[in-house]
Amino acid sequence: MFIDINCDMGESFGAYVMGEDEKVFPFITSANIACGFHGGDAVVMARTVALAKEHGVAIGAHPGYPDLVGFGRRNLQTFPGEIRSYLLYQMGALEAFARAAGTRMFHVKPHGALYSLAARDEKAAREVIHAIKAFNPEVILVALAGSLCVEMAQAAGLRCAREVFADRAYLADGQLAPRNREGAVIHDEESVRRRVVKLVTEGRLTAIDGTEIHLAADTLCVHGDTRGAWRLARGIREAVEGAGVIVRSLGGKW
Amino acid sequence: MFIDINCDMGESFGAYVMGEDEKVFPFITSANIACGFHGGDAVVMARTVALAKEHGVAIGAHPGYPDLVGFGRRNLQTFPGEIRSYLLYQMGALEAFARAAGTRMFHVKPHGALYSLAARDEKAAREVIHAIKAFNPEVILVALAGSLCVEMAQAAGLRCAREVFADRAYLADGQLAPRNREGAVIHDEESVRRRVVKLVTEGRLTAIDGTEIHLAADTLCVHGDTRGAWRLARGIREAVEGAGVIVRSLGGKW
Amino acid sequence: MFIDINCDMGESFGAYVMGEDEKVFPFITSANIACGFHGGDAVVMARTVALAKEHGVAIGAHPGYPDLVGFGRRNLQTFPGEIRSYLLYQMGALEAFARAAGTRMFHVKPHGALYSLAARDEKAAREVIHAIKAFNPEVILVALAGSLCVEMAQAAGLRCAREVFADRAYLADGQLAPRNREGAVIHDEESVRRRVVKLVTEGRLTAIDGTEIHLAADTLCVHGDTRGAWRLARGIREAVEGAGVIVRSLGGKW
Amino acid sequence: MFIDINCDMGESFGAYVMGEDEKVFPFITSANIACGFHGGDAVVMARTVALAKEHGVAIGAHPGYPDLVGFGRRNLQTFPGEIRSYLLYQMGALEAFARAAGTRMFHVKPHGALYSLAARDEKAAREVIHAIKAFNPEVILVALAGSLCVEMAQAAGLRCAREVFADRAYLADGQLAPRNREGAVIHDEESVRRRVVKLVTEGRLTAIDGTEIHLAADTLCVHGDTRGAWRLARGIREAVEGAGVIVRSLGGKW
Repeated sequence: MFIDINCDMGESFGAYVMGEDEKVFPFITSANIACGFHGGDAVVMARTVALAKEHGVAIGAHPGYPDLVGFGRRNLQTFPGEIRSYLLYQMGALEAFARAAGTRMFHVKPHGALYSLAARDEKAAREVIHAIKAFNPEVILVALAGSLCVEMAQAAGLRCAREVFADRAYLADGQLAPRNREGAVIHDEESVRRRVVKLVTEGRLTAIDGTEIHLAADTLCVHGDTRGAWRLARGIREAVEGAGVIVRSLGGKW
Repeated sequence: MFIDINCDMGESFGAYVMGEDEKVFPFITSANIACGFHGGDAVVMARTVALAKEHGVAIGAHPGYPDLVGFGRRNLQTFPGEIRSYLLYQMGALEAFARAAGTRMFHVKPHGALYSLAARDEKAAREVIHAIKAFNPEVILVALAGSLCVEMAQAAGLRCAREVFADRAYLADGQLAPRNREGAVIHDEESVRRRVVKLVTEGRLTAIDGTEIHLAADTLCVHGDTRGAWRLARGIREAVEGAGVIVRSLGGKW
Repeated sequence: MFIDINCDMGESFGAYVMGEDEKVFPFITSANIACGFHGGDAVVMARTVALAKEHGVAIGAHPGYPDLVGFGRRNLQTFPGEIRSYLLYQMGALEAFARAAGTRMFHVKPHGALYSLAARDEKAAREVIHAIKAFNPEVILVALAGSLCVEMAQAAGLRCAREVFADRAYLADGQLAPRNREGAVIHDEESVRRRVVKLVTEGRLTAIDGTEIHLAADTLCVHGDTRGAWRLARGIREAVEGAGVIVRSLGGKW
Repeated sequence: MFIDINCDMGESFGAYVMGEDEKVFPFITSANIACGFHGGDAVVMARTVALAKEHGVAIGAHPGYPDLVGFGRRNLQTFPGEIRSYLLYQMGALEAFARAAGTRMFHVKPHGALYSLAARDEKAAREVIHAIKAFNPEVILVALAGSLCVEMAQAAGLRCAREVFADRAYLADGQLAPRNREGAVIHDEESVRRRVVKLVTEGRLTAIDGTEIHLAADTLCVHGDTRGAWRLARGIREAVEGAGVIVRSLGGKW
């Protein structure tokens, strides 16, 4: 049994520090690196790619909307083709740093509002998929487990890693419980650990209403912008490794 | 005899239109495409790359300082490594569009204040050269003819195209006459045509003080942000072709 | 009979030129000056305020979403209070230039997507109204004639000028015909002139389906970002003045 | 005896948190609030102005270069009049929030590279001074004690508060010791406290080379972007109050 642990990294911007990347790197296997639109800048990207390489962590692009003040978290109206261009631009920018560091870009995970939109909206998902296929069809798309996007990516012949959020509750239909619902974020680390072990070893999760649901996960997300992300990452890693699961990046799967 | 004609393209931004790219493309062989820092945006880049491909014009990156309001024309203090990161980011972004369009990036020409700095400043030139070598050592650097940057790039084993500005006057020592000096910009199209023919066929130019100077040019620059750039480009092309020179992109040289 | 003619001005940004402000100024009485969010910058604002003063044109703020690449034309998700803060910021910025030029800010007209949202959305309209009342209750709000926003502003005791678009068609219910509908933009200048004279002198307009509708207008909008805006402005001005209407800024009304 | 304690506040941007404003407010008397160019945004400004008012702290503008990624700390080439426009814009923006909160803007302190430039460069200082006089001649300029800017502001009839940095060393000629010089930043809190008491009560300071120098201070700066700024602020406040000095904002002086 295998699982990948991913975290959003490199979201600092100029003098603004976001997250504790150095502390998180030892516990993850994939880094989704911000590309200068919702966060990150060229200097931060160079540094983050170097750190990822140093820790043997797989490098991925984390493209978002061009909305720094909104941190890519709010919906933005786009014209047809615009999302595709946003993705190409940001994947290319990140790949340049990966290549200059003597490594390469393994995956792409859209950020924030773009991630959520692509999970449910056919047009957005199609632009994301087209962008990746046009850029490099070997690149793995990280998408919400159980979403339309996963389905479409697989149908398009793209490598698609199904992502489950380690500290988030799910509805009985396999969808993420909305953040504003009580219990949507699981704060108790012991519960998180138990949930991920069951998810990874049995492919099952207890939904927010108590129902047992099936959910296949290729990668677990740890949020990097919350304090103590490194502790959560460490706890998850120890828990799944303790259950005999091998933690490794997504490349091994294909 | 061969010469390349290059022009800065894709400098529009969102609703802001800069230049008359469609009119200029038929007459040039290399397009320096803005990469979103001093001008251009992801949507404009996709469109400009498509236009370049359609016209059989070689695609190049035109990276600048992250200073949209200053259009990359003013000096900006940078930390060591920052210029290198700015270049990697922008070259990568552009290459993504080239690749998605089924073509590739052939050259890089820094923009504005960054171009001028790299021409005369050893540290800046070194960062530019390192960025290109780390990104793709096959990429051609377009640099000011007679500058330190050309010398350093050649010494570093980089392909470097020496650029001469078609409508600019030169000093007796082969340097560009500063813009604020009278006669620095040559407005008479007939003069421009005569100058470029002599330059390309004889490797000589009359300096602003009347001295005859030697200057080797691989590429002629036509400014795209001035009205009538297409007319200037057409005039130059007709003139050099009329003198038996073959106008082709830089790739043919190496 | 009186009417104001307004135009969006000062939308240039750095080296990017938008509109032909100098040509439009002689024919308008109110300038809605971009405030650096969707367009405009500090230098352009200073220059535009000076031009407005020189031409005796009333100065107003034209605040938009912080989305330069989208030119403030696309919807942007906002949190409660955010629109209010966006307005305060931009009104303050513009007023500083007005005050430094020895004049003052007379009106505010939200831009693009924000204008449209405020016209129909109660929460957005309320934030706009609160911002103006908190900033300076003497400032006139320019809002879409017949919209919810006009109603709410009047109920809140704010001075509100009802705006009609000179070259746009209207539906039978008094709403603007959507841009994508055929005939939504009236290109024939003679028609535009006839329509505005009837509107200003009789308070009536022929809707897109031929119905005669009543519409009260305090100000006519001429779009500044289209070529020939100055000609349209001149035509409208000549037409209404020819019909005995006095063209003057909004201040005279209150 | 009186002294003001000021701190740079409101430098957070969107999701990016900078400083610990809530903890610092209880100990200072003047807040220099970022205005959206080098840091801060409209939402942060509204919140920071509210906090300042709540704590009875005088509100001031903290205008910087339009360089978010560089946090306004690096030199930027400007055209004549540009600095003046940058200041007007940002002062206006801040005043709008102050006015909407039922209070007003008391002072202006340029930020980072602009502060340093204005301290030594006559042209820059003149633009700063002109901007303030044109905006509101009652507003107090906070400038580096002993600098050309103080002299020019006083000569121009502007209220100018001489600022000393609580935790920085000074040269024998009264200038700030450059940051890269050893001992330039004083980390020992006890030393800082002793120095500020002597400075405020005796108008004297021990320079970095041991010389005793005279320095008149109207306000002490505590850096808000360093961790523990609140502790430094508290220590300084306790120290000077313990020495019988009244800590109050600058308004009392004029």
